[in-house]
Amino acid sequence: MRRSRRQNIGQDIGSWPVAGNGLLDRRIFLAGGAALAAASAQAEPLEVASWSKAPGTGFPPYGQPSRFESKTARIFASAPGTTGTGAARTPLHLLDGMITPNGLHFERSHSGVPDIDPDAHKLLIHGLVKRPLIFTLEALARYPMESRITFLECAGNGQLLNARDPAQTTVQGLQGLLSCAEWTGVRLAVLLEEAGVDPRATWLLAEGADAAGMSRSVPLAKAMDDALIALYQNGERVRPSNGFPMRLLLPGFEGNMNVKWLRRIKLTDGPTMTKDETSKYTILERDGKALQFVFPMEAKSLITRPSPGLTMKGPGLYEISGLAWSGYGKVAKVEVSADGGKSFAEAALSAPVLSRALTRFRMPWRWDGGPAVLQSRTTDETGYVQPTRSELLARRGPSGLFHFNGIMSWSVAPSGELKHAYA
Amino acid sequence: MRRSRRQNIGQDIGSWPVAGNGLLDRRIFLAGGAALAAASAQAEPLEVASWSKAPGTGFPPYGQPSRFESKTARIFASAPGTTGTGAARTPLHLLDGMITPNGLHFERSHSGVPDIDPDAHKLLIHGLVKRPLIFTLEALARYPMESRITFLECAGNGQLLNARDPAQTTVQGLQGLLSCAEWTGVRLAVLLEEAGVDPRATWLLAEGADAAGMSRSVPLAKAMDDALIALYQNGERVRPSNGFPMRLLLPGFEGNMNVKWLRRIKLTDGPTMTKDETSKYTILERDGKALQFVFPMEAKSLITRPSPGLTMKGPGLYEISGLAWSGYGKVAKVEVSADGGKSFAEAALSAPVLSRALTRFRMPWRWDGGPAVLQSRTTDETGYVQPTRSELLARRGPSGLFHFNGIMSWSVAPSGELKHAYA
Repeated sequence: MRRSRRQNIGQDIGSWPVAGNGLLDRRIFLAGGAALAAASAQAEPLEVASWSKAPGTGFPPYGQPSRFESKTARIFASAPGTTGTGAARTPLHLLDGMITPNGLHFERSHSGVPDIDPDAHKLLIHGLVKRPLIFTLEALARYPMESRITFLECAGNGQLLNARDPAQTTVQGLQGLLSCAEWTGVRLAVLLEEAGVDPRATWLLAEGADAAGMSRSVPLAKAMDDALIALYQNGERVRPSNGFPMRLLLPGFEGNMNVKWLRRIKLTDGPTMTKDETSKYTILERDGKALQFVFPMEAKSLITRPSPGLTMKGPGLYEISGLAWSGYGKVAKVEVSADGGKSFAEAALSAPVLSRALTRFRMPWRWDGGPAVLQSRTTDETGYVQPTRSELLARRGPSGLFHFNGIMSWSVAPSGELKHAYA
Repeated sequence: MRRSRRQNIGQDIGSWPVAGNGLLDRRIFLAGGAALAAASAQAEPLEVASWSKAPGTGFPPYGQPSRFESKTARIFASAPGTTGTGAARTPLHLLDGMITPNGLHFERSHSGVPDIDPDAHKLLIHGLVKRPLIFTLEALARYPMESRITFLECAGNGQLLNARDPAQTTVQGLQGLLSCAEWTGVRLAVLLEEAGVDPRATWLLAEGADAAGMSRSVPLAKAMDDALIALYQNGERVRPSNGFPMRLLLPGFEGNMNVKWLRRIKLTDGPTMTKDETSKYTILERDGKALQFVFPMEAKSLITRPSPGLTMKGPGLYEISGLAWSGYGKVAKVEVSADGGKSFAEAALSAPVLSRALTRFRMPWRWDGGPAVLQSRTTDETGYVQPTRSELLARRGPSGLFHFNGIMSWSVAPSGELKHAYA
């Protein structure tokens, strides 16, 4: 059976379609000869390059990317007159895999990055506890640690999708407030147990040591479940832009609740209604209803390659690759369309598929050189399906900027140029 | 049952031993009050630090660690008169989690790091193939990709353990030629299928574009199994010190076979016997027998915290944390001893436990302030058990420097100082 299929492919690549406009079965790539267009035949031997003719450079204490990779960088904007009130975006269209390297992790700051001396920083746990406690970094290092590979996404990520016309920028510009890292630290539950939780406590206030005193209210149930005081990010100490020396980590919850430069946790009998949760991060719907305290980020996906800014070089086989995630658990499936949503086929998911982590999906595509509209749609393990942009807009209206997880569309022109489109 | 145990702990922490000299059941940390010694009670409110009183700094395109983390760096040594013939070591004792950040990934170079222009670099596949092919980076980007979180370990890592007296250095100095990253790239099998494998081919030669022309022979079976041409490391392009713009990735195989700056793969009908596999990387055993082509790294583990250089601050509860791995698959278990191997207890493994990746293990320990000798011993999914140093030496003799995976020992003095010991 397999043999006959392979022979068949040699004659007709189009014989393994899984959805319209060129989406193909993944086995096409292992079917010998199917992808030949990408490589070229070569007369041996290979020319010896200049860099092979003399010894290279020595060892730096802390390595950096190649100088040829300078465009793989964060783009950012600050509010006028401020230092670092704004956001820096991850270049998702230039990355692959599930992990975001620390130098490119997105950042949303409300008053810049404080230069904290870790030996002087303290974390206070107080409020409705039996005994207020203070933790230095050294004290926390005595506690048991756990690791979680988890995404962080700004609650406002993707809000450009609510604009009347499709914004012409890259995935970085549209959705770059999204990253994924391995976070390691102490379970907040362990510290709260030690402080002794007063039975009246149902929420907590988490406050940062930045000048903005960024602070959010968190249900105690989340704190007792999987919350961490994160000390390490992809193995090394948390980066300054991500909360050095410690941040709150609430897997799946909107980014700003994962309070950076964490200095204080106060147990309370209700939400504190801080400036950061009353003036922002509330979803105003079309019918006038406002959704406050919508914490987990809903299931979402996007195609990172090909995507706007990455022009395709002629017809032939390509791999469509992207990311999917859900604040409610694991990604169950991702479907991809090349015909603007008329037909979908299920993509392959890269292992390991982890709860509340970015999940990479992949789908082979034979582009015939004609017009195409690429979309992805994910379903998480709760059965929730990523909505279309118009479904979301029908509920949200023009002011519903947060948690904007509608399906995105990239239109492909015969020139190979990709554009952000509404489809 | 649970309730009564918790009450019991309040009275007597020592009631949950799992092995000698203070090793405790992991639940001790969630047993309220058990770890109290590490935190201190605090009169509210917390002092407002200077860095909270003014806006912080803005956004860099590519982020860096805190200036207070300058000691978290690689240490390295080059051969006299060379630029970068030597190795740079990962500071494992200062990291946590399973991922190594790219700036701290270990490096073993045979003639420094070449400064490769990715647009000019080419990969040739030739030898026993139906049609030699050449791949530019742009061509490879058309192919399907896969990701693997996998460790890399230099074949010579840990060879100081063969010295007569225990070398007094950190885990970094003893075992720092070990790292773990998410690697993403094209399956070599796909490219070989496209070139068309001649039935006579059983091996391949992989050659780097460094001035040393580092090259190794690899069995074709491995190439067709899980080998990658890796283009991304923890999401971004492979770092120059790790093979930018592309390296061979052979999960589980000794580090140097994962040829960096890969320029050529030649299919052959036997091993090529290059300088790099005849002058080095052969294990000479005590009976005179030499083991050549021992590819997968055997199961091994080490305790990273506490460890030499990280002085303990007085008796009380600590977490013993370390890393385990096997080139043959998954780590099945890790056992820890605090009494020099007289008794062991099983440690907790951090999820996800992945094949050929570093696996973090953790074990609670109540140090009574007396002498102790800490050890870890891992067993992989094949049933292989990490040998003691003396078992390994009995076979290896004084010249058996490669694949040195014997159990390591850290002695703890009443002062809290840790030393490398032979036990």
